Amino acid sequence: MTQESATVDPPGDELFARVPTEVSVYEVSPRDGLQNESTLISLEGKRRLINALVAAGLRRIEVTSFVSPKWVPQLADAEELARVLRAPEGITFSALCPNARGLERALSAGLSEIAVFLSASEAHNKANINKTIADTLAVFSEIVPPAREAGLLVRAYVSTVWGCPYEGAVDPARVVKIAEKLLDLGCYQISLGDTIGVGNPRQTREIVRRFLDVMPPERFALHMHDTRGTALANVLTALEMGVRDFDASVGGVGGCPYAPGAAGNLATEDLVFMLQSMGISTGIDLDKLIEAGNVAEQVIGRALPGKVHKAGPFRLRRSPTRAS
Amino acid sequence: MTQESATVDPPGDELFARVPTEVSVYEVSPRDGLQNESTLISLEGKRRLINALVAAGLRRIEVTSFVSPKWVPQLADAEELARVLRAPEGITFSALCPNARGLERALSAGLSEIAVFLSASEAHNKANINKTIADTLAVFSEIVPPAREAGLLVRAYVSTVWGCPYEGAVDPARVVKIAEKLLDLGCYQISLGDTIGVGNPRQTREIVRRFLDVMPPERFALHMHDTRGTALANVLTALEMGVRDFDASVGGVGGCPYAPGAAGNLATEDLVFMLQSMGISTGIDLDKLIEAGNVAEQVIGRALPGKVHKAGPFRLRRSPTRAS
Repeated sequence: MTQESATVDPPGDELFARVPTEVSVYEVSPRDGLQNESTLISLEGKRRLINALVAAGLRRIEVTSFVSPKWVPQLADAEELARVLRAPEGITFSALCPNARGLERALSAGLSEIAVFLSASEAHNKANINKTIADTLAVFSEIVPPAREAGLLVRAYVSTVWGCPYEGAVDPARVVKIAEKLLDLGCYQISLGDTIGVGNPRQTREIVRRFLDVMPPERFALHMHDTRGTALANVLTALEMGVRDFDASVGGVGGCPYAPGAAGNLATEDLVFMLQSMGISTGIDLDKLIEAGNVAEQVIGRALPGKVHKAGPFRLRRSPTRAS
Repeated sequence: MTQESATVDPPGDELFARVPTEVSVYEVSPRDGLQNESTLISLEGKRRLINALVAAGLRRIEVTSFVSPKWVPQLADAEELARVLRAPEGITFSALCPNARGLERALSAGLSEIAVFLSASEAHNKANINKTIADTLAVFSEIVPPAREAGLLVRAYVSTVWGCPYEGAVDPARVVKIAEKLLDLGCYQISLGDTIGVGNPRQTREIVRRFLDVMPPERFALHMHDTRGTALANVLTALEMGVRDFDASVGGVGGCPYAPGAAGNLATEDLVFMLQSMGISTGIDLDKLIEAGNVAEQVIGRALPGKVHKAGPFRLRRSPTRAS
């Protein structure tokens, strides 16, 4: 019966033809992860977390933010932290940097990379940084070129790409235009954020296609939230289209304070588990990454939502009863 | 700059060419979900949950199990529940049924579908039902044909397809052989389980391809666990290959008691959120499904892991500050 009813030409090979052999994971837990924690975390706690992430093999880590301490009290120790950190050879520590004052602080702290940020939707940008998108890009045009001249790498975040909590749908063509302006200013990579975790794979395909129409895959990264469980399905679609850069946060700590229900950056260990089990190289040691998740839980003082952190990688169990 | 560096031929269309326009969701929460709950749930609680699932548009629901009450005390009220349930037109209520005694009970209770179950790995089958796979299939050969003759539909579960907690890797060719035997006995569909939630999309592609080599997609379903966050990525791969049947459990309740760390059937609302947002028809009302998840939480008396149940579907929020 089963032989006779085989009517489908088995597909498959074409699906993974473009999946990259290597992926670069950009770790955001020390900044994006911690910034909304209400309990102040000590400098030593932050250093422990960052050291654990480095030990796990993460090579690009966003460590803090040079926004006003009034906005984000948790990261008021940005200069002090940047000074006590020593980026080992081959490791990039970056910091968020909203304006000229932030750039000054980043330069004096000796970091090698900064990140600028805005939203793809006007209402979210207004709620988040109290400026129009045009005014925000004007500020960036005053800080990105001097940062580049001072030898810094500059990355950019664009939020609400998959949907805005105030405006709803966001036109991908608009996002591409914003991204092109940021690249033209001198940013080396644009991180596209599903800030409220509403993205689906069909939408991800459309967004990624628009980007691949005008730039190579290394110019953008995906920053997916797992708010509705779809983060890794969206990552998979992007992988199938050749995207090789993904942001994540160990333990799944963090989200966007202005987006209701936004519980959950994609957990780095969940991302790395899937990538590694698909045979994609990340340079990350999953056991040590899970240890870094333990450190994050200790430092923050509560359980974090990451799943592989709880379940562990796949390990054999001693059989309780053996079939004879 | 971005124009000049466009070196990639944008992919995408071929990825979703086989994605079905309709998917059938098989709901397992009343049986697979509840069976490991230690607090006994009342008949009325179970009926409330099942009615909420029917109201949400689920048409295939596994409502109970005719295993020995000694094995699963939670489902000792199987006959009574089956008798008080009235399957509305077009709705199938099924029950797990391990042996001839179970079949007798199912027949007398008036259900229209039963399900048999075994594992793809000997050690898990031994631990779970204390028989070899060959002996289990011999039992099925005594109950599936009479069940068919009595007019029942018979479905089959095969566990540990993506990995066994005792044996590790499981050969997909072995699973296909077991599935073919079950189809030959008269089962109409084989549900393939990632019992310990270790599956990755590359492995899913391999398993699905082996099945599509010998049978059409309607002959098998995927029953993924979200233990490590990869359930929907695995579902996506299967969708891309034309699979149209998926099991899920509202709220993400349930798992396998013999598999360590197996916290979490894929939540039905997370599955339906992704399918619907991709434009795939399920016949399910997501808002009512979330209500069914609320009923499950009330009936079980604790928070459940499903994400869309917590975050809700994507709804606009009133903008706190409007850009002028």
